[in-house]
Amino acid sequence: MNPCEKFRARGRKPWKLCIQILKIALVTIQLVLFGLSNELVVSFKEENTVAFKHLFLKDYKDARDDTYAVYRQEDVYDHIAFTIQRYLALRNISVGNHAYERMAGGQHGMTVCKYFYKQGSIFPGNETFDIDPKIETECFTVEPMTPISDLSLDDKFWNMTLDFYRLISVEIMFKLKAINLQTIRHHELPDCYDFTVTITFDNKAHSGRIKIRLDNDVGIQECRDWHVSGSIQKNTHYMMIFDAVIIVTCVSSISLCIRSVVRGIHLQREYVGFVHQRFSKSVPLSDQMEFVNGWYILIIVSDILSIVGSILKMGNPGKESDKL
Amino acid sequence: MNPCEKFRARGRKPWKLCIQILKIALVTIQLVLFGLSNELVVSFKEENTVAFKHLFLKDYKDARDDTYAVYRQEDVYDHIAFTIQRYLALRNISVGNHAYERMAGGQHGMTVCKYFYKQGSIFPGNETFDIDPKIETECFTVEPMTPISDLSLDDKFWNMTLDFYRLISVEIMFKLKAINLQTIRHHELPDCYDFTVTITFDNKAHSGRIKIRLDNDVGIQECRDWHVSGSIQKNTHYMMIFDAVIIVTCVSSISLCIRSVVRGIHLQREYVGFVHQRFSKSVPLSDQMEFVNGWYILIIVSDILSIVGSILKMGNPGKESDKL
Amino acid sequence: MNPCEKFRARGRKPWKLCIQILKIALVTIQLVLFGLSNELVVSFKEENTVAFKHLFLKDYKDARDDTYAVYRQEDVYDHIAFTIQRYLALRNISVGNHAYERMAGGQHGMTVCKYFYKQGSIFPGNETFDIDPKIETECFTVEPMTPISDLSLDDKFWNMTLDFYRLISVEIMFKLKAINLQTIRHHELPDCYDFTVTITFDNKAHSGRIKIRLDNDVGIQECRDWHVSGSIQKNTHYMMIFDAVIIVTCVSSISLCIRSVVRGIHLQREYVGFVHQRFSKSVPLSDQMEFVNGWYILIIVSDILSIVGSILKMGNPGKESDKL
Amino acid sequence: MNPCEKFRARGRKPWKLCIQILKIALVTIQLVLFGLSNELVVSFKEENTVAFKHLFLKDYKDARDDTYAVYRQEDVYDHIAFTIQRYLALRNISVGNHAYERMAGGQHGMTVCKYFYKQGSIFPGNETFDIDPKIETECFTVEPMTPISDLSLDDKFWNMTLDFYRLISVEIMFKLKAINLQTIRHHELPDCYDFTVTITFDNKAHSGRIKIRLDNDVGIQECRDWHVSGSIQKNTHYMMIFDAVIIVTCVSSISLCIRSVVRGIHLQREYVGFVHQRFSKSVPLSDQMEFVNGWYILIIVSDILSIVGSILKMGNPGKESDKL
Repeated sequence: MNPCEKFRARGRKPWKLCIQILKIALVTIQLVLFGLSNELVVSFKEENTVAFKHLFLKDYKDARDDTYAVYRQEDVYDHIAFTIQRYLALRNISVGNHAYERMAGGQHGMTVCKYFYKQGSIFPGNETFDIDPKIETECFTVEPMTPISDLSLDDKFWNMTLDFYRLISVEIMFKLKAINLQTIRHHELPDCYDFTVTITFDNKAHSGRIKIRLDNDVGIQECRDWHVSGSIQKNTHYMMIFDAVIIVTCVSSISLCIRSVVRGIHLQREYVGFVHQRFSKSVPLSDQMEFVNGWYILIIVSDILSIVGSILKMGNPGKESDKL
Repeated sequence: MNPCEKFRARGRKPWKLCIQILKIALVTIQLVLFGLSNELVVSFKEENTVAFKHLFLKDYKDARDDTYAVYRQEDVYDHIAFTIQRYLALRNISVGNHAYERMAGGQHGMTVCKYFYKQGSIFPGNETFDIDPKIETECFTVEPMTPISDLSLDDKFWNMTLDFYRLISVEIMFKLKAINLQTIRHHELPDCYDFTVTITFDNKAHSGRIKIRLDNDVGIQECRDWHVSGSIQKNTHYMMIFDAVIIVTCVSSISLCIRSVVRGIHLQREYVGFVHQRFSKSVPLSDQMEFVNGWYILIIVSDILSIVGSILKMGNPGKESDKL
Repeated sequence: MNPCEKFRARGRKPWKLCIQILKIALVTIQLVLFGLSNELVVSFKEENTVAFKHLFLKDYKDARDDTYAVYRQEDVYDHIAFTIQRYLALRNISVGNHAYERMAGGQHGMTVCKYFYKQGSIFPGNETFDIDPKIETECFTVEPMTPISDLSLDDKFWNMTLDFYRLISVEIMFKLKAINLQTIRHHELPDCYDFTVTITFDNKAHSGRIKIRLDNDVGIQECRDWHVSGSIQKNTHYMMIFDAVIIVTCVSSISLCIRSVVRGIHLQREYVGFVHQRFSKSVPLSDQMEFVNGWYILIIVSDILSIVGSILKMGNPGKESDKL
Repeated sequence: MNPCEKFRARGRKPWKLCIQILKIALVTIQLVLFGLSNELVVSFKEENTVAFKHLFLKDYKDARDDTYAVYRQEDVYDHIAFTIQRYLALRNISVGNHAYERMAGGQHGMTVCKYFYKQGSIFPGNETFDIDPKIETECFTVEPMTPISDLSLDDKFWNMTLDFYRLISVEIMFKLKAINLQTIRHHELPDCYDFTVTITFDNKAHSGRIKIRLDNDVGIQECRDWHVSGSIQKNTHYMMIFDAVIIVTCVSSISLCIRSVVRGIHLQREYVGFVHQRFSKSVPLSDQMEFVNGWYILIIVSDILSIVGSILKMGNPGKESDKL
């Protein structure tokens, strides 16, 4: 019997149906809000990646990533020097809120590493070579706070001569931090971002073409200490109340469905007993399953997942709102 | 009975049909002429927008609107300075009929505004920030007639330092006027155009990428005072006569259709009376509607719209032709 | 009866079929040869147009024809001066066989014309204008053999100031001659080409965007006097013999088809007479047409066209081979 | 009877089926490995071609091959000089393992050849020309080890003036050698590559546009003398063992199939004899063919091809592993 027939036959109001419809509406709204807030995160990451490409890669042009490469020894040095200079001058150049990663101890700053075959003498003209395929690594670091006296930089840098015939790749790695301020305009708290930028000069092929690639790994976390004037905490509370309403709805939906399933099982047992008594034969499993509505099982599973998701979601902004 | 049968049966000439065909032809011609004259307006607007982009945006290239952005603090100042210089030198640079908007009082000239968070100290390195999400605005204006002594311009301009970490956007706004002379070659009067150009440096995301956008709002109006040698007014009169012919045609089409509808209603009433007398029962509404031809109603509505449109269209050039 | 049946029944060889197949093969070969020789002409024209764009248009880039435009007064003068300088220095610059058109009297050299409204004062700022839509033309010519003393060129040129507010267009026109030498490698005689190059600076819209367009009209003709070492005339003779064979084949195809048609008409007349005598009734036209095979008519028409085409084609190289 | 039925009916295990499945798996793996190793070869060749275009062609840009051309006499000289200078300085410029081809005697280094009509005077202005379509060639070579004293290079080079009106093409040809080191990381031996680079300035059309094309022919061969530290020979041995396993599998597959075919033919002969004796009539060929399973024939053919291919493949790395 579907809800309409039930209503006509026995006058019972379709509570279960109403709760399902309400639940679908609420979960959809929750999903849309979550998606919108997430879009800011994704677009912030992508825009930063584009900005890093323009800031740290020499002569970079949009939409030419697949042909961005260097072909001359001099260009390789130029590109590396360009990246280092831009990194040192970052605060005066970048229009974004980029800052160097600061650590108490351990390595920080920019790391420039070259990877090369351990030992090798290659004479393509004679068609002879003598090579050790073990890969050696040599790195040096650039402190972000060193004053740019170009001379000393060059001195240090040019000491690291690149033997192109056995060079495999050069990797420049550094970490930057940024704050995604635009969420403040949607009445959400800004998050702090850690960008791990890796610029790779890839000479694996030794084909005369060194491809350059910039990768940007992002870590998102709460900022440690912050103060926002005005009423930004409102929205977080509203979001939590909304999540709670969804959880309540899902719980009632679950309880109604479980009740129906339990009743179905009772009925099934009685039927099995009846058939056993009267006809002395067992009811096949496929007939027994007729008493349990599969849709209820599905709804219960989906509700449990919704509740778990909502609790996890509440947990995250919950921490922030504790501090408010 | 369709028109052909009517002609064969009673020898009546199909006036209604002829008028409909004539009307369709005339309205089509009117529409085509109107469309052609409108195309000039649209293309003038679009060409001006392209010209403004090339004149006021530094290093602008065609078909790269989505990647047109700056990434360095210096570039932002350069782009703003470039736009101001181009604006001041406009009369010596532009190949079009562009002029500054002149007003008796009030604001005019170019307005450069920066929008920023009221107060803020942001330290992504420490993951701390202190911000007031209220937005403040600071503007200054550039008089179009000031002589370009670059020094003083720079002085004035550099005083407006941009704090990129709390800058939301910079907007440069100015109004230009132009006259669409090419209509004169189609024997129409040139119109005067007001262009409100807005150049936006969008730093909402604080991602290190400031997108630059040029928007161009257009207002079209009659020029205040003008003189054209030769016979340009001819065409306007012809257009008005043509519009009048269309109105006359539509009016006769309406009157014929109304006559038919009225006759149909008479017939319907007689039939209802007859049925009521003879069979003492009422005729259902669906049968009554059989006597009213729906197509006639549609034609009447369409004719009324055509007449209203033509009158509005006549009203516009009518004002101009009064002056002739 | 189709050819196969006829052969089996009466032992008659299918001459008509053989000739048709032969004809199709020959005409296809003729067409392919003609197409190949024509492709050289078309590609020569197109390559010259591209070369002219690169030679005479400043900062021209491939595949950007639709956005090739200037936006600044200075650029217009620069572009015109560039074109004139390139024209004067053509013999030292071009890698092709380009030469100036030489005439006994009359105008030659490069013509620079500006078209503008006769009189006008336009004040978009006041929304007033006073204009005479008649178009005036002012031209000056540049002799190709004048030595490039840039100073005098500039003097002459800058006297022609452009009033952009009433300028409609600037047209630069000149004629160049060239010889398509590559046909010599296909054993055909090189042709002489006349290129009429027109560069248009189009300011009709007065929108601040002057579009630049280069048009290239081509005239092809035999060269007046020439000498080629070696055996180039061979091929022309062979082509003529080939064309003659095609004509002969078409003529025999026509005569066989006409014979069949004539026989069909005879048979038809006899049948009509017979029916008239025996049954005293006339044969309807549709039955009479059964005796005439429509395909033969089609073949005759197509043959006549082939013969006419071949004769025209022979006439053209025929003139050239007379001189050999 | 298919394998399953045979197993049920007679308890015979389906050896033939198992061997076929095993064979398919092994051959697929062999093919995939071979494809992967070949991909390195193809990509190495293509990357080198791209690198050569960037190294030796002036102002080359990616993905513009079809519009890469020069239009001015000066540009032709510049492009040729650029290529020669880059060739001489190759070791200091290229980031790849490129070396000049060295030969004991005979020609080596870079060869610059110009092709032109033997004799010619062309006056497009007069529409007259006098030409000898025989093609002459003039070449000079540039020794790779000459020190770049630009002056002497220029002296030598400018002596070769190009008469553009009769120039057909300029070809610059040189050989480079390289070693594909990246295979070492896949535990394969690096191969030595011979690149024959041909840069063609194509003026066949004399249209004012000289198209420039770079072609790169590749020869791959074992390097003559080499030494690799560590255990690179392992992989070659493993590959050979794998190939041997495939050959063994194919041989057993063949022998099983041949046995079945032979048995079929025996049965067929007995049947023919029986029918001949009993019914004194011969069995038609189509009935006889029923006894031979066509699929077995196909499998035998395919196995023979697999064995031949595997032996050829073993032969190649086999030579290399001999040296180990």
